[in-house]
Amino acid sequence: MEAKRTEIHELGEFGLISQLESSISLMNPSSIRGIGDDAAVIDIGNGFVQVVSTDMLVEGIHFDLTYIPLKYVGYKAVAVNVSDICAMNALAEQITVSVALSNRFSVEAVEELYDGIKMACSNYKVDIVGGDTTSSLSGLVISITVLGRAKKEDVVYRSGAKANDLIVVTGDLGAAYMGLQILEREKQIFQENPQIQPDLDAKDYILQRQMRPEARVDVIGFLKELNVQPTSMIDISDGLASELLHICKNSSVGCNIYDDKIPIDSQTSLTALEFEIDPSTCALNGGEDYELLFTISQNDFDKIKGNPHMTLIGHITNSDEGKYYIDKQGSAVELKAQGWVHFG
Amino acid sequence: MEAKRTEIHELGEFGLISQLESSISLMNPSSIRGIGDDAAVIDIGNGFVQVVSTDMLVEGIHFDLTYIPLKYVGYKAVAVNVSDICAMNALAEQITVSVALSNRFSVEAVEELYDGIKMACSNYKVDIVGGDTTSSLSGLVISITVLGRAKKEDVVYRSGAKANDLIVVTGDLGAAYMGLQILEREKQIFQENPQIQPDLDAKDYILQRQMRPEARVDVIGFLKELNVQPTSMIDISDGLASELLHICKNSSVGCNIYDDKIPIDSQTSLTALEFEIDPSTCALNGGEDYELLFTISQNDFDKIKGNPHMTLIGHITNSDEGKYYIDKQGSAVELKAQGWVHFG
Repeated sequence: MEAKRTEIHELGEFGLISQLESSISLMNPSSIRGIGDDAAVIDIGNGFVQVVSTDMLVEGIHFDLTYIPLKYVGYKAVAVNVSDICAMNALAEQITVSVALSNRFSVEAVEELYDGIKMACSNYKVDIVGGDTTSSLSGLVISITVLGRAKKEDVVYRSGAKANDLIVVTGDLGAAYMGLQILEREKQIFQENPQIQPDLDAKDYILQRQMRPEARVDVIGFLKELNVQPTSMIDISDGLASELLHICKNSSVGCNIYDDKIPIDSQTSLTALEFEIDPSTCALNGGEDYELLFTISQNDFDKIKGNPHMTLIGHITNSDEGKYYIDKQGSAVELKAQGWVHFG
Repeated sequence: MEAKRTEIHELGEFGLISQLESSISLMNPSSIRGIGDDAAVIDIGNGFVQVVSTDMLVEGIHFDLTYIPLKYVGYKAVAVNVSDICAMNALAEQITVSVALSNRFSVEAVEELYDGIKMACSNYKVDIVGGDTTSSLSGLVISITVLGRAKKEDVVYRSGAKANDLIVVTGDLGAAYMGLQILEREKQIFQENPQIQPDLDAKDYILQRQMRPEARVDVIGFLKELNVQPTSMIDISDGLASELLHICKNSSVGCNIYDDKIPIDSQTSLTALEFEIDPSTCALNGGEDYELLFTISQNDFDKIKGNPHMTLIGHITNSDEGKYYIDKQGSAVELKAQGWVHFG
């Protein structure tokens, strides 16, 4: 009898993860929250918790060294982890960095990677407290685990959104995705004709958003100063639609968001049009923006009104009212996640 | 001008790590200890610390799926991490598990890997609180970060050994290395002639030591019960010689250990002789035993005397007295680390 073989792409990344998760339970009383949010939450006593998250970046899947310098890969690896801690309304303090690399990499290359890692750590005030360096048979793999600390009552989960809460995003969306399109276009042109100089005119913002995203630690500071405790929060790594659906699922609510309110930078819009892509599609499904998506009580609206870092894009509804995106024509379209599909 | 290119094998794994470490400093007051011990130590207030360690296992480097089932790979990945927490005299409570895998692996294969991970977690009373699952272009990479908690004053570092302290190891040494030799021999025979049945007669103990090592969480319990606080401790992943040299370096001391005192199981000795290897060489340099090596004050000798889990193998000396291994003939040989060399 042959053993059953189910291909991973039949389940998809989220399907596989949820199947693995379903059999995991927590035993230790200090494990407050396990898998299923941006970070795990561990009780450390005295009203404080440790917030822990981990991310693995694989060459050829998450980054392409033909157009991203190693220094940027290192910076981004730290930023995306720190962003997960921000998404819990906490600040990162320590990371561990594990790296597997083949002998294709020189000592100088590893140093360049670590220069990026250290630059990000310095910017985010995070200490590198541990790690592992090993060889691999092919390519580069970076695995980072990040630790932050917060008061137990300050932690924001994906599960706290309530009907009538307002939906807010920070910064602007879709830029990282358009930056990636530019890099891939120029890579292809270069491969076909190495003589042609890359055309990166007026693309600096979207390239930077793709190559060197920042974790919004500043926003966590602003929220504290404004005395705003979000009711739910997540960071935007897989695209606005996917992340908002996570909040809706975890909070058992519905939502309405409005196309004309979604913040998109003009460079993103212009580049999207150049590629004949709807800019809103980039914002909804592009991913890798590492902005924060959160919900607040209506009572807190005045505190964030007019804040240049935060944009109101819609509101939470009851679960039975569905999850909708209201397009430019005013039609309600069911919100669906395209996101990133790593297993293809 | 060409950029300088230094090959990683010119520095070696330890050389590369120490070069990277040299430029890392700690900024946050909560970071008590960073890189350089079995685990990092983070102050969580109220007299407690969190102990954090991370390990990355790469297919083809750390394990060979032609002879190790995925369930064992999963189990071992957890055990080696939990062992690092034991080496700080603490107990693991949480882990995060990140896995990168190519489409060569089926959903059933991933489940088998996780079955091993979950079995180890259940044995060691550790919760899986987070992780990341992603694809890779080739092979399997597992990165685990483990968290434990301890009273600040209970934590044992590599740096506390003092002259005249006694050197103790748990269990027996060299078995995991001989188990690996058997597996590699049988793999080669199988590749040359698939008809021949593997000859694993009377090799069960050393195979189990290689394929399914255990973290000595029991020893941490015994030490507490016996009221013994080691002055320094490390786990044996790279071989007794290499680990003892770490303790000597970190504690600025010398040592004498005695060949005739090193605990070696008879199956290890017999198999070593079969391979025409000196059993002591396996114990000194074999690695992957995941036993604990620690030093205690002479005053504590009576507490561990006759304990079947612990063997006295020598004593700590002053730094200027050197680091020696006293062989069967009574000659003092300078202790050198062969260890595992991953970058070749």
